[in-house]
Amino acid sequence: MKIEEYIPVIDRELTESIPQIEGEHSAVADMMRYCLENGGKRVRPYLVLEFCRICGGNFKKALPVAAAIEFLHTYSLVHDDLPCMDDSDTRRGRPSAHVKFGEANALLCGDALLTESFGLIASAEIPPYAAVRCVSELSWLAGADGMVGGQYRDLLNESRECSAKDMISTEELKTCALIRAACCMGCYCAGADSDRCDAADGFGHDLGLAFQIRDDILDVTADPEILGKPVGGDEQNQKITYVSILGLEKAQAEVERLTTSAIRRLGVFGAAADDLRAFAGMLAKRDH
Amino acid sequence: MKIEEYIPVIDRELTESIPQIEGEHSAVADMMRYCLENGGKRVRPYLVLEFCRICGGNFKKALPVAAAIEFLHTYSLVHDDLPCMDDSDTRRGRPSAHVKFGEANALLCGDALLTESFGLIASAEIPPYAAVRCVSELSWLAGADGMVGGQYRDLLNESRECSAKDMISTEELKTCALIRAACCMGCYCAGADSDRCDAADGFGHDLGLAFQIRDDILDVTADPEILGKPVGGDEQNQKITYVSILGLEKAQAEVERLTTSAIRRLGVFGAAADDLRAFAGMLAKRDH
Repeated sequence: MKIEEYIPVIDRELTESIPQIEGEHSAVADMMRYCLENGGKRVRPYLVLEFCRICGGNFKKALPVAAAIEFLHTYSLVHDDLPCMDDSDTRRGRPSAHVKFGEANALLCGDALLTESFGLIASAEIPPYAAVRCVSELSWLAGADGMVGGQYRDLLNESRECSAKDMISTEELKTCALIRAACCMGCYCAGADSDRCDAADGFGHDLGLAFQIRDDILDVTADPEILGKPVGGDEQNQKITYVSILGLEKAQAEVERLTTSAIRRLGVFGAAADDLRAFAGMLAKRDH
Repeated sequence: MKIEEYIPVIDRELTESIPQIEGEHSAVADMMRYCLENGGKRVRPYLVLEFCRICGGNFKKALPVAAAIEFLHTYSLVHDDLPCMDDSDTRRGRPSAHVKFGEANALLCGDALLTESFGLIASAEIPPYAAVRCVSELSWLAGADGMVGGQYRDLLNESRECSAKDMISTEELKTCALIRAACCMGCYCAGADSDRCDAADGFGHDLGLAFQIRDDILDVTADPEILGKPVGGDEQNQKITYVSILGLEKAQAEVERLTTSAIRRLGVFGAAADDLRAFAGMLAKRDH
C-alpha cells in the first residue's frame, strides 16, 4: 500500500492516542496535540504499517506502534527546537512548542510524548512478546546508543572541525536509528522471521541515510515555498553537511546509491514490497 | 527484607544497567552514571523488589524493573533542575547535571534515562505479559496524566493562589504516581492477583503523599547537615506546601494518618509485609 492510503488512518490514530485527561493538566494533552498535528510526512508510521502488512500481518493491529514512533519522533523535534539545543523558533511554518507554550511547558510536552510512546506499544493488540521486542528495539535505537547519542554527537560536531566519517556516524544514530526502528517494529508486529527483520533493518539504515542527504541537498536547492521552511540555513550556520563535503552532484549520487541499496535489500519480500520500492525512489527525488 | 539489605544489589544493578557504548557518545553513558550515582535513597526500586518478594516472586528477576524506575525518577530530577524549571544548581550536595555538563547535555541525559528505562523493563526475565503490564503502568503514571501532568500543575501553582486541594492533586500526580508504579510493578513481576495489586497501589498512594508531606516538614525543621541540602527554600520561594497550609503539627499528624492508612492496606500480605510496615513507619519519622 502507498503512503497516501495510510495517511488518514495514521492521523486518526495519532489523535485518538493522545491521552484523555480530566483536570488542569489536560493542557499537556493539548500541547501534545499541537505538536503532533504539524503536517509531518508520517514516514516512520508508514514504515511500521507497511512492513507489518508485507510480512503478512494485519496493519490495523500495528497502528498503536505506528503512533508510538510518531510520538517519539515528535518529542525529538520538540526538544531539538529548545533554546539550549537548536533554538528554532518555527517548525514547519508554525511557532515551535517553546515559542507557543514557553520553555518549561515544551520540555514537559516532549517528556510526555516520549513517555506515552512506550505506553502506546504496550496497548497494541499484538502478542506480548512482540510488544516487548518493540519496546526493546525502540528504547535501544532512540536511547543513549541511538538517537540521543546522535544528538549528543551533533552538538559536539558543531564545536569542532568534523570529518565526513564523524558526520556519517552522527547521522546513523540521529536519523537512521529511528527509521530502522520503524521498519523492524513493523516486522515484529507481524511475527516475521529473522531474515525479514534483518532485511528491514538494512533497508531502514540505507533509506535513513539517503533521507538525510536529500534533506541536506534540499536545504541548498529547494524552493522555500514548496519546502515549507527557509533554505540556506546549513550554510549560514557553517554546518558541515553531506553537501558541504561532497558537493551537490556527488551528494545526489550518494542518495541514489543508497536508495538502490535499500531497494535491493527488499528482495526477500518479493512483489509485496513494490510500493515500498516506489516509496524509496520517490523519497530520493522529493522536493520537500 | 529491609531496604539496607537491597541497597548494594540495587546499586550494582543500576551501574550494570547503564548502556555500554563505543564511540564518542559514550559520554552520554558517563552523564547517566553521574546522575544515577547520587546517593539517592532508592525508595522506588526497594518497593519494586519487596513487593515482588512478598507476592511470592524472585526479587532478582525484578531487578531490571527496579533499575528502570530509578532511571525514570533520576530523569525527572535532571529535567526538574534545569534552568527553565526549578533552576537548581545543586542536587544532594553536588552540582546538578546542567551545571556539570551544560544545559543541552543535561536535557539529553534526562531523555536517555527516560528512554532506557523502558528498555530495562523489556530486558527483565519475567513473562512478556508481565513486562507489558509494567510498561503500560509506568508510561501511564509517569506520563501526561501522571508525573509529567503533576510537574505541569506544579508550575501552574507557582503563578497563582493555590488551594490545599490544588496542592494535593498536584502531589498525587507528581510524587505518588511514581511510587504507586513502583509498588504495582513489583506485584506484576510476581504475577500477583488483582487484590494484591490493588492493595499495593493504595499503599503507594498513601505512602507517597506521606513522603511528600514529610519532605515539606523537613524543609522547615531539618538540620541541613543531616538533610544534605539547605533548608527553608520553600518559605523563601513563598511556595505553598502542606506546612504553610496546615502548620507543622497538623502536617505531621497527616503524615501519621496516611502512614497508618498505608500500613492498614497491607493486610492482604500478612506477616510477609512486616518489613514494609516498618519501612513506612520509618519514613514517617525520617530526618533526611
